[in-house]
Amino acid sequence: MYKNRKAIVLLSGGLDSTTAMAIAKSEGYEIYALTFYYGQLHKFEIDSAKQIAKSFSVKKHNLIDIDLKTFGSSALTSDIDVPKDRLIDNNNNEIPITYVPARNTIFLSFALAWAEVLPAYDIFIGVNSVDYSGYPDCRPEFITAFEKLANIATKIGVESSERITIHTPLSQMTKSEIIKLGMSLGIDYALTHSCYDPNSIGKPCGHCDACILRLQGFEQVGIEDPLNYQK
Amino acid sequence: MYKNRKAIVLLSGGLDSTTAMAIAKSEGYEIYALTFYYGQLHKFEIDSAKQIAKSFSVKKHNLIDIDLKTFGSSALTSDIDVPKDRLIDNNNNEIPITYVPARNTIFLSFALAWAEVLPAYDIFIGVNSVDYSGYPDCRPEFITAFEKLANIATKIGVESSERITIHTPLSQMTKSEIIKLGMSLGIDYALTHSCYDPNSIGKPCGHCDACILRLQGFEQVGIEDPLNYQK
Repeated sequence: MYKNRKAIVLLSGGLDSTTAMAIAKSEGYEIYALTFYYGQLHKFEIDSAKQIAKSFSVKKHNLIDIDLKTFGSSALTSDIDVPKDRLIDNNNNEIPITYVPARNTIFLSFALAWAEVLPAYDIFIGVNSVDYSGYPDCRPEFITAFEKLANIATKIGVESSERITIHTPLSQMTKSEIIKLGMSLGIDYALTHSCYDPNSIGKPCGHCDACILRLQGFEQVGIEDPLNYQK
Repeated sequence: MYKNRKAIVLLSGGLDSTTAMAIAKSEGYEIYALTFYYGQLHKFEIDSAKQIAKSFSVKKHNLIDIDLKTFGSSALTSDIDVPKDRLIDNNNNEIPITYVPARNTIFLSFALAWAEVLPAYDIFIGVNSVDYSGYPDCRPEFITAFEKLANIATKIGVESSERITIHTPLSQMTKSEIIKLGMSLGIDYALTHSCYDPNSIGKPCGHCDACILRLQGFEQVGIEDPLNYQK
């Protein structure tokens, strides 16, 4: 247990990042949650992130507004259609249109800035490389490269004897394993939001990659997803 | 000459980034300039960046608003006093209070997002590791680590046969060498802004690290800095 040791947790409001936060909390870290509004159309996840941060009694929740729409070119931030009922096959090495350019690099860079100031040497990110959409910035080699950069790029990396660590507790877990672990840690998944293309009142579509992976996970666990999907 | 090849140039509005842009332009690149308003007190440099981008007829100038003040803790973004008349000694390994946490990591991350979308494989940054303030994210090892990350983190890095390159043409040059080169490329340094602590109408102080390095550079070249300093 790392009592009173600070950890920054990237919290999107989704199932994975919420579980990563619960894991950090269960390990005794004091939680500093970081959420981004980056022009995503599924901004209901921001409301989820706020509720989740509150329910976890985080030490601080920082909401950062960055405009990735400026650069364009993702189905998550523009009017390109979100693909539905897609066969998710990570062996074909295809990166889908929902990929947001350099998103995790940007998110981790901000986390790093906050880490310097606190200071904190532990950053948690809920990336997963098993049941995922094939984004390059979710892979273990990306995390390794970022961790190396973090320790070169910063004053705390250079001056302190401690190393900055990027924790990816979900990296090698299936979605059902993530859900099972999260439930054992007391997460109320009804608070989380995963859908890329919710309707106007935030109801998930049930057919985008995020919904498919989530629903498959709950099915494998053998319990019902507490979210109320569009009919 | 790389005619019609796109390059993203990080343009602060200062002497170094302007020179880096002139070099990219002289090599034939089509310039996409990227400037950040990050809560810096010396925001006159933003006006300089706009004028400079215009004078270089860049293809596009993107101005990104990010709030690094949220995290606090730099003399450039808070009411901590900017040190004056400091002896700048890079051999003592001291990182000054004007260091902004993870700034270049964040800036390059945004550049990377834009690079993905254009796409562009060349990013120019005017970091210098000779006449500089000792910031960790100006060192060659930082740039090497970021370039490696860039090629792992992105769709273009993964899918294309081309490598993303972070160009640091000023890295090993002294300030006077930078100024000489810039003048030979036709830069009007009267447009640039370097001071960390200008007065209310933007006149440079002449005593912060940035002013000292700049003034020494012009002195070594044997010409007068065209800027109008505070008396």
